[in-house]
Amino acid sequence: MKNDTIKAAIIGASGYSGEELVRLLLNHPRVELTAVTSRQHAGQTLARVFPKFASHPSSRTLHFSEPDTDALAKQAKVVFLALPHGVAADFAVPLLRAGCTVIDLSADFRLKSAEVYREFYAHEHPAPELLQQSVYGLPEVHRRDIAEANLIASPGCYPTSILLPLIPLLRARLIRSEGIIANSLSGVSGAGKKAEVGFLFCECNESIRPYSVPKHRHLSEIEEQLSLAAGSRVTIQFTPHLIPVNRGILSTLYTAPTAHFSTAEDGAKIADQVANCYQEAYGNEPFVRLLEGQMLPDTKNIVNTNVLEIAWRLDPRTGRLLIMSAEDNIVKGASGQAVQSMNIRFGFPETAGLI
Amino acid sequence: MKNDTIKAAIIGASGYSGEELVRLLLNHPRVELTAVTSRQHAGQTLARVFPKFASHPSSRTLHFSEPDTDALAKQAKVVFLALPHGVAADFAVPLLRAGCTVIDLSADFRLKSAEVYREFYAHEHPAPELLQQSVYGLPEVHRRDIAEANLIASPGCYPTSILLPLIPLLRARLIRSEGIIANSLSGVSGAGKKAEVGFLFCECNESIRPYSVPKHRHLSEIEEQLSLAAGSRVTIQFTPHLIPVNRGILSTLYTAPTAHFSTAEDGAKIADQVANCYQEAYGNEPFVRLLEGQMLPDTKNIVNTNVLEIAWRLDPRTGRLLIMSAEDNIVKGASGQAVQSMNIRFGFPETAGLI
Amino acid sequence: MKNDTIKAAIIGASGYSGEELVRLLLNHPRVELTAVTSRQHAGQTLARVFPKFASHPSSRTLHFSEPDTDALAKQAKVVFLALPHGVAADFAVPLLRAGCTVIDLSADFRLKSAEVYREFYAHEHPAPELLQQSVYGLPEVHRRDIAEANLIASPGCYPTSILLPLIPLLRARLIRSEGIIANSLSGVSGAGKKAEVGFLFCECNESIRPYSVPKHRHLSEIEEQLSLAAGSRVTIQFTPHLIPVNRGILSTLYTAPTAHFSTAEDGAKIADQVANCYQEAYGNEPFVRLLEGQMLPDTKNIVNTNVLEIAWRLDPRTGRLLIMSAEDNIVKGASGQAVQSMNIRFGFPETAGLI
Amino acid sequence: MKNDTIKAAIIGASGYSGEELVRLLLNHPRVELTAVTSRQHAGQTLARVFPKFASHPSSRTLHFSEPDTDALAKQAKVVFLALPHGVAADFAVPLLRAGCTVIDLSADFRLKSAEVYREFYAHEHPAPELLQQSVYGLPEVHRRDIAEANLIASPGCYPTSILLPLIPLLRARLIRSEGIIANSLSGVSGAGKKAEVGFLFCECNESIRPYSVPKHRHLSEIEEQLSLAAGSRVTIQFTPHLIPVNRGILSTLYTAPTAHFSTAEDGAKIADQVANCYQEAYGNEPFVRLLEGQMLPDTKNIVNTNVLEIAWRLDPRTGRLLIMSAEDNIVKGASGQAVQSMNIRFGFPETAGLI
Repeated sequence: MKNDTIKAAIIGASGYSGEELVRLLLNHPRVELTAVTSRQHAGQTLARVFPKFASHPSSRTLHFSEPDTDALAKQAKVVFLALPHGVAADFAVPLLRAGCTVIDLSADFRLKSAEVYREFYAHEHPAPELLQQSVYGLPEVHRRDIAEANLIASPGCYPTSILLPLIPLLRARLIRSEGIIANSLSGVSGAGKKAEVGFLFCECNESIRPYSVPKHRHLSEIEEQLSLAAGSRVTIQFTPHLIPVNRGILSTLYTAPTAHFSTAEDGAKIADQVANCYQEAYGNEPFVRLLEGQMLPDTKNIVNTNVLEIAWRLDPRTGRLLIMSAEDNIVKGASGQAVQSMNIRFGFPETAGLI
Repeated sequence: MKNDTIKAAIIGASGYSGEELVRLLLNHPRVELTAVTSRQHAGQTLARVFPKFASHPSSRTLHFSEPDTDALAKQAKVVFLALPHGVAADFAVPLLRAGCTVIDLSADFRLKSAEVYREFYAHEHPAPELLQQSVYGLPEVHRRDIAEANLIASPGCYPTSILLPLIPLLRARLIRSEGIIANSLSGVSGAGKKAEVGFLFCECNESIRPYSVPKHRHLSEIEEQLSLAAGSRVTIQFTPHLIPVNRGILSTLYTAPTAHFSTAEDGAKIADQVANCYQEAYGNEPFVRLLEGQMLPDTKNIVNTNVLEIAWRLDPRTGRLLIMSAEDNIVKGASGQAVQSMNIRFGFPETAGLI
Repeated sequence: MKNDTIKAAIIGASGYSGEELVRLLLNHPRVELTAVTSRQHAGQTLARVFPKFASHPSSRTLHFSEPDTDALAKQAKVVFLALPHGVAADFAVPLLRAGCTVIDLSADFRLKSAEVYREFYAHEHPAPELLQQSVYGLPEVHRRDIAEANLIASPGCYPTSILLPLIPLLRARLIRSEGIIANSLSGVSGAGKKAEVGFLFCECNESIRPYSVPKHRHLSEIEEQLSLAAGSRVTIQFTPHLIPVNRGILSTLYTAPTAHFSTAEDGAKIADQVANCYQEAYGNEPFVRLLEGQMLPDTKNIVNTNVLEIAWRLDPRTGRLLIMSAEDNIVKGASGQAVQSMNIRFGFPETAGLI
Repeated sequence: MKNDTIKAAIIGASGYSGEELVRLLLNHPRVELTAVTSRQHAGQTLARVFPKFASHPSSRTLHFSEPDTDALAKQAKVVFLALPHGVAADFAVPLLRAGCTVIDLSADFRLKSAEVYREFYAHEHPAPELLQQSVYGLPEVHRRDIAEANLIASPGCYPTSILLPLIPLLRARLIRSEGIIANSLSGVSGAGKKAEVGFLFCECNESIRPYSVPKHRHLSEIEEQLSLAAGSRVTIQFTPHLIPVNRGILSTLYTAPTAHFSTAEDGAKIADQVANCYQEAYGNEPFVRLLEGQMLPDTKNIVNTNVLEIAWRLDPRTGRLLIMSAEDNIVKGASGQAVQSMNIRFGFPETAGLI
């Protein structure tokens, strides 16, 4: 074992987020990956299940196991849960009790309200007592809380792409909290590694389609976090679309400046405020890239990285402020962000293993 | 020559719209394709330039020629212009004078105002005297005018996907004319067959990106047509995005009902009105498909057809009416629609050669 | 019912071949599609299951039913079986007995030998007595037999792309029957509409991979048909690969001319013989396109058509004759070819409903 | 400047290989990237030209310059040439004279014979005197020579995927040197970042096509290297195909064992010899992965890595030995391999900056 490292485990390591966690943790300078679980692959080596990792020495010695929280609590200090919603709590409770830090990539601990959870996920919350304890793992917004959390709820992919661009503007009262629209485009990995006809190659390739209109589950955490930032209840319009790329989310956000906006002078003033607000919020963030000049986000520029790109335009014709963001839904939108939270929680450099 | 047919020519037949016109006209029961022009391919057969048409007998006898309006006026009764904007007028003027019907797929004759043209296309209109004469070739909206027009300005791909869903609702005053947002996603063929680095396979594949934000040229014709329908000046927000598919446009439209909307009863009433409005407008249209039940548009269901799909949802959380449409940008968004106009103009069955 | 038409049914109409049969038969001038079966979709309309056909009037009246051979025998004169191998016989036997013509798209009746079937398909043949009666439905090769057959075994997608280029040359003794290699590339629809992880979008997109090396099941019918053409036992090397396109097969065939080949003169003579052989075999075939000059096959030129493209090159450096072919695996490689056989069997123009 | 590093420059850094070199060198622990040249982008920062690198600090300080060998020789100890063939020599000569180590990614210094160069590249070799001095930069084969070379000719993408699987078997006389066939499939980045219609998204997507049949330029270096390994003149059949993925080459190689092969015992013996030969050649190579069990190469498992995967099958039906390899054409097939050679040349760990 390396000297200044911690031991980590991944429960549910066979999906796309799990696979990305494996990749990130195998190469993380401060982590030793000691356990990966998957009912389907129990007994097989990492190399066998993920041929792409076969050149890494650990891939031949590390075997998938059945998820056993007692065993895992002895094998790891930090445990990542890459499981469907509704299942994560079963593992989180005993692991927390055993003293592990739990970083959950499911939706189970992202909300404060068990009722909202029931409304959006259509079943009772499995461990409502933990909702107050958990911290929403959006590092650029909740860094201090993450540093002390034992239960980190890593944000959803769509929410990350919508929250990071909006929160600073809402906090600074630069945009109105009503009437916000988020039109989001996601690659197919967002649907997970499920054997469903709708996600077969021939069903997605050469296809563009909206889905979950008008009430996608991620609305719940988006609105909760936006409300926190605005200091009042925020309701938004959110329309996700499925796009034939493996990875990437592009969100186009339509907002209205709070300031009066009818002359070019008004516009210049608002533009300055927006620029300053973003600069202050993200100018020193390693994983938020504020695009300059005529540049617009493009998912191909951030795929396989933990970076979220932001650009914005003030439209004098409509008076709106348009904001566009791009991220890799599996990295900044899931596993990379989870590792970023782990880095914060354990006092590692925040970019360790991520660039 | 077939008995009850007309002769047709295509100027600029080497691009994607031109190629689709060739396909449609070669197989049209009432048309004889007598001339195709292309400076680049002059002298070559259709079979040589488009191997995919090589099994059609005419592909081996029909040669590309230089565009010569005198010759073309003798060879054809109807001439399609599949040219870049700014160039079409040079051909339209002499062809009209010679008695041809001209169907222009460029933007040159879509606007009534030469000033708006200058604002959006950054050069003087080349033949402003024709702007009043030309008819905007959206058959479901301007069928009667098309039937008598000699200069038909076939609509742009984005405008078609936005206008057809919005016009009936605006005419019926069911939605407000302010605050409309059109978020559109287009396949790469929309960029044309130009040798530019930005449209290379590796630059588009695995990429999602917005462009021309916030003022795309198509805004001019969209707003002119919407204003006509609303009876007042309409300004909309329009954001196009480039998506890695060959063909297809998906537009997601955000609108507000004019009626008061706070209870479920309000909602049911508005929903009935919208359903009736669409049924009345498009229930008998062969090329508009109103989706039922839980169905949402998917470009793969309309690619290679002249059909535009429409679905809508009333969102009780936000009070908005969302409308989604899908079309093939090269067929209903360009060449198919142009042929539909030709069918109307010459008294052919409107679906001739299109299904 | 139309006057000079026959009634047709499709058993197993929910997969990719079934869907393509639906498309072709809905638009066929001499066919009335009277029944489509699918256990999964029984009771639903065509419009519901395949939104893309929703504009066709029959799509709203025709409902999927459970497959019941007694009922089908009354509803249809010709029945297409689009089922997995091993299942087709259960339907073929009673349908044939009831006087239907059966066109089977599975592998069940393609071989003459029940033993070879067992070797390649790993189970006993379900109806060996029918093997002698069935006709291999490759129209360009077995047209006369097809015209009189009641049980037509429509060829596999890979076999079609390999047999059509090779059979004329083997029959003419222009190439050696030993040492032939077929390197084939297929789009993902060839795997069918099965919910398997391996065919998810993210598993196929940005992936190139060989499979079933070195003994794919299609070898059995390829070698049987090649042996018939050569007049002696032919064993070939066949390597299929999965390529991220929806449709299309590209086969690259490596053969050796029988004639001595060392000088440019030898080469010219062999080239003449090959050209003549192909011209004689396919010069008048509506669905085989012999490419001229420097052209090479490209699947994009034949997708959605029933055409197979062929090009060939004699390589003076190696003495080999390379042949390349392209087809749409679902049209010429499956459903289009099946309709072509039906046209022959019922005396319709061979191209009816196919161009 | 870092302590134990060398300074590196890239001439022609705007293409796909150049961009990948930028990525690798920016993150290389022993390299300081001091200069990047591009006529087109001279004066612009790395961040501007490649937004994806904008989060790297150097991307904002490093500007593209015009290629000036005098200046470059002062700025760098090692210079990478990522230029078209025929141009590289103009830079190599003065840089070598000035004491730089030159790693050329073009084809200019890969052959020993200026005549073969003329035959395959259709122009006179620009600096034939350097051909004897240059070392073919295939590390697994020429590691010792690379360690001492000042002019390293980094291999082509296709050659790497064909040579690494074949050379050990030819050296060990396990396969015959006659009759070898290489059927290769390449992603579109292999065509470079040239604005040509044939490589537009819509021309490549949903397309599979062979090209440069039967005499592709890479044959020259493939045959020269195979001949060296076999100890006699080797002529092979090589057919490249264009596949719609960004990156990746999959080569399927058809060879014949030298040993008599008719019984299962023969087969087992040959299989042992092949396995041992590969184990000996590549068992300890960090960038060659010998696939075990039923695994077959898949480009998605090696994309973005410097790894080449190899699997093989002995076919008892045909007596052939099939070998399949997969690599990333831009990494192991170009820039990664060039960095691997640099590591060897300067005594760095061979995997530095590559995993």
